Amino acid sequence: MELTGTSFIGRSRGAAGNPAGQAITAATGEPLAPVYQAASPEETARALELAATAFPVYAALPGKTRGAFLRAIAAEIEAIADALAARGVLETGLPEARLRGETGRTTGQLRMFAALIEEGSWVDARIEHAQPDRQPAPKPDLRSMLRPLGPVAVFCASNFPLAFSVAGGDTASALAAGCPVVVIAHHSHPGVAELVGGAVVRAAEATGMPEGVFSLLYGGGRKVGQTVVAHPVIQAVGFTGSRAGGTALMATAAARPQPIPVYAEMSSINPVVILEGALRRGGKALATAFYQSLTLGVGQFCTNPGLVFLAGETTDEFLSALTELTTAGTPGTMLNPAICQAYAGATSALAIQPGVSTLARAGAPCGNGQGAPAVFLTDIATFRANPALQHEMFGPATLVVTGTTAEILETIPALEGQLTATIHGTDEELAAHPGLVAALERRAGRLIFNGFPTGVEVCSSMVHGGPYPATSDGRSSSVGTLAIHRFTRPVAYQSFPAAALPPELRDDNPLAIRRLVDGNPG
Amino acid sequence: MELTGTSFIGRSRGAAGNPAGQAITAATGEPLAPVYQAASPEETARALELAATAFPVYAALPGKTRGAFLRAIAAEIEAIADALAARGVLETGLPEARLRGETGRTTGQLRMFAALIEEGSWVDARIEHAQPDRQPAPKPDLRSMLRPLGPVAVFCASNFPLAFSVAGGDTASALAAGCPVVVIAHHSHPGVAELVGGAVVRAAEATGMPEGVFSLLYGGGRKVGQTVVAHPVIQAVGFTGSRAGGTALMATAAARPQPIPVYAEMSSINPVVILEGALRRGGKALATAFYQSLTLGVGQFCTNPGLVFLAGETTDEFLSALTELTTAGTPGTMLNPAICQAYAGATSALAIQPGVSTLARAGAPCGNGQGAPAVFLTDIATFRANPALQHEMFGPATLVVTGTTAEILETIPALEGQLTATIHGTDEELAAHPGLVAALERRAGRLIFNGFPTGVEVCSSMVHGGPYPATSDGRSSSVGTLAIHRFTRPVAYQSFPAAALPPELRDDNPLAIRRLVDGNPG
Repeated sequence: MELTGTSFIGRSRGAAGNPAGQAITAATGEPLAPVYQAASPEETARALELAATAFPVYAALPGKTRGAFLRAIAAEIEAIADALAARGVLETGLPEARLRGETGRTTGQLRMFAALIEEGSWVDARIEHAQPDRQPAPKPDLRSMLRPLGPVAVFCASNFPLAFSVAGGDTASALAAGCPVVVIAHHSHPGVAELVGGAVVRAAEATGMPEGVFSLLYGGGRKVGQTVVAHPVIQAVGFTGSRAGGTALMATAAARPQPIPVYAEMSSINPVVILEGALRRGGKALATAFYQSLTLGVGQFCTNPGLVFLAGETTDEFLSALTELTTAGTPGTMLNPAICQAYAGATSALAIQPGVSTLARAGAPCGNGQGAPAVFLTDIATFRANPALQHEMFGPATLVVTGTTAEILETIPALEGQLTATIHGTDEELAAHPGLVAALERRAGRLIFNGFPTGVEVCSSMVHGGPYPATSDGRSSSVGTLAIHRFTRPVAYQSFPAAALPPELRDDNPLAIRRLVDGNPG
Repeated sequence: MELTGTSFIGRSRGAAGNPAGQAITAATGEPLAPVYQAASPEETARALELAATAFPVYAALPGKTRGAFLRAIAAEIEAIADALAARGVLETGLPEARLRGETGRTTGQLRMFAALIEEGSWVDARIEHAQPDRQPAPKPDLRSMLRPLGPVAVFCASNFPLAFSVAGGDTASALAAGCPVVVIAHHSHPGVAELVGGAVVRAAEATGMPEGVFSLLYGGGRKVGQTVVAHPVIQAVGFTGSRAGGTALMATAAARPQPIPVYAEMSSINPVVILEGALRRGGKALATAFYQSLTLGVGQFCTNPGLVFLAGETTDEFLSALTELTTAGTPGTMLNPAICQAYAGATSALAIQPGVSTLARAGAPCGNGQGAPAVFLTDIATFRANPALQHEMFGPATLVVTGTTAEILETIPALEGQLTATIHGTDEELAAHPGLVAALERRAGRLIFNGFPTGVEVCSSMVHGGPYPATSDGRSSSVGTLAIHRFTRPVAYQSFPAAALPPELRDDNPLAIRRLVDGNPG
């Protein structure tokens, strides 16, 4: 597929005439053709209008039909895997193996949601039969299930050009729920976005979806995105990116005449608590595994471990191994120059905080667009006294904080909300500190024992979410089957004749789904 | 129990010295002793501090233990049913039968949530076992379940002194979820609040709950409530009341350093669509049933039918019967003088809108604190042209809008979000207009066929919620077992040893709950 540099407005393409920007080769800074054209206000309005028209049609389709659409998207993406890998390496600087792995994750997510809606029990169908003779008042027949919210705006993420972008988890879960999607491309990988956009549009046509079930808009800066979020047609927002970007969308959504939910995954430093038992088990092996997690993908993961609490006094082996690894580390190409510069700024700002020392560096923070691993050190009193030490450094840098287990436990409630929190230690230590688990649970969406936060399994039990400001809405997950619930609301039908009920709520249960009938699982 | 007029700060009582106001006898306007004392800033802070301390202790209690607490509250409330009825009649003007019925609903709700958490499956436990040999990467052991959000602020409602107040649905569902509750009393029934507050505190002491699991604050105006919602300890808000009150709380919650969810049930005019078949079946009987729903509780229900679309031309019998009933109707004592005055203001404002005529009135809108039933009439073109015709009139008044079925269908998308929407017609008409159901579904949380919206069944399939501005968060229900989910968030535990997992997530399933294991229902 040739790249044209224009938006997808339903089945049509946007026009030229409003250049928004051009991708650059992450490794060299060379510009990449074509020049991308921002969606015009008319094109944006048309995409929204098409989404509104598509919604009732798309929402009424059976789960099996929407599932076929998701599977067709997955197949179309697989058919262009080579092109995605080639363009992706250029635009993002990520290695080809990562792009191919992320393609697999993306198609896997689409098929996971397809399977969920083909099976159908996810709608949480509840039936209570009438009791016309009940005293003092008759009980009516009442049935409820989850229904789609309406058209959803999805923002592509800089750090996951496939799995959190055009046909990533937000889009897959919204489409699965029955919501049309209007995607806003990320300026740093517009070519990958266009390739995937083409795949979605082909899948929509091949499976007979209504026009407007999907559009993909390019835009200069944040303008197009803010216009879309403010538009009355849009009923929810999915976003993965910076705290500034996420909170700006939250403000726009809250200021609408009708406020709408925003699911923004924004920032997290993913604290790792290392107890003495873990250090005694072998500080060097632990440091090696930690360093691998820290530097995976040049540290550009939402779950990157940017904060380590080291308990007790047996810290030398861990610290010297981490110092050695970091000093000998290799800088890596970051996603784009702005991210590299922001990484340099964040690590430099941390380095000059009082009481913080630079334990090790693999080079200048951002030399030639390459982010260099870095480890900083402080003590727990300094950490507690200075909230700036909790600022995210998006990249391969971490802050090690030393203290006693008791001091660490006292400090946890002062942490901001996180996506993850990790404990390293022995089973006995975990049992001896129930308050540690309880305190971390209140600050994070996922707790990990003797592992690392990077590597987010896509499955039914994943929670990729967490208290604000890790996300805008800690009641949700953006990964795994739980993600579909973000785009739904319950609706009840009282005294409806069977013929007018959705099949999920009919007595004969034609879809053979699990239901709660008169309070009991059916 | 003698009324003292002071707040409950955990197990202590507030001090005198800061008079906030006094209840009045709804029927006569006479003041009722005692004078209520506003919680001081120190007392408010202490209640919040106690809630924060209670939270980890209370959240860790087994469902069976929390269930025993809810059942003890129900028993304590039943033990004071006579006192509640006596004081309630004075403070609210509601008839004794209604207060006794509402007492039963309140204790029924408490026991429904007790049963839900004693059984335990509501936590949506999900288990995915490790696959250490999976290629290309091992799969970790990952388990998730719903956990409580933290301390919740609950506002008492003017129109439900029991079922939506101190120990009403918000409190019951928050306590069931594992969240301590700080209740803000309503100035219009402080005595009922104090009686119920005493019942909750006695139940908490009898069942060994941590101090701070419950507090009840009196306050002058909105000051105490806003202070509580802005406080960092509070993690969610439950509210039933006016749109002005609800949106003020939404703004406070959104402006916090950490925004929190607000579940505000605010306003709804609950459209009723009457198709020709229903009118042909008998306009007089329908008008009689409608009038009964309209005037139930002097129209002071969130689900009061304040808007009727009459389709077709066979409208005479319905309209003349409704006119006759209304003209012969009896004004009723409203909850408080402010509500009566607001009712008079809203109906007077509607009466002077261009194109709106007054079909019938039972008297002056608010004579001697009595609200008089009123019915207004307009045509659909006038209705569509004037958004003011959608303003809620809290009380026994409705606006009848005449038009064709096609015109009504076109008008529905212009309606604001509603708690309920009702259709009267034949099964054939319902089948002939699938777009009517689909359109109403997008504007309401509950759809009713050939019934009336008043009478909200408390059960597993009830949805008492709806798109903004009916509620602040249309993804939720404030009635029925679904209400518990408002006060929870999912948490995942990765690679945890069995001993450190909550019992809900252990392989041996000691609580014998329903779970999703490796994607399959267990």
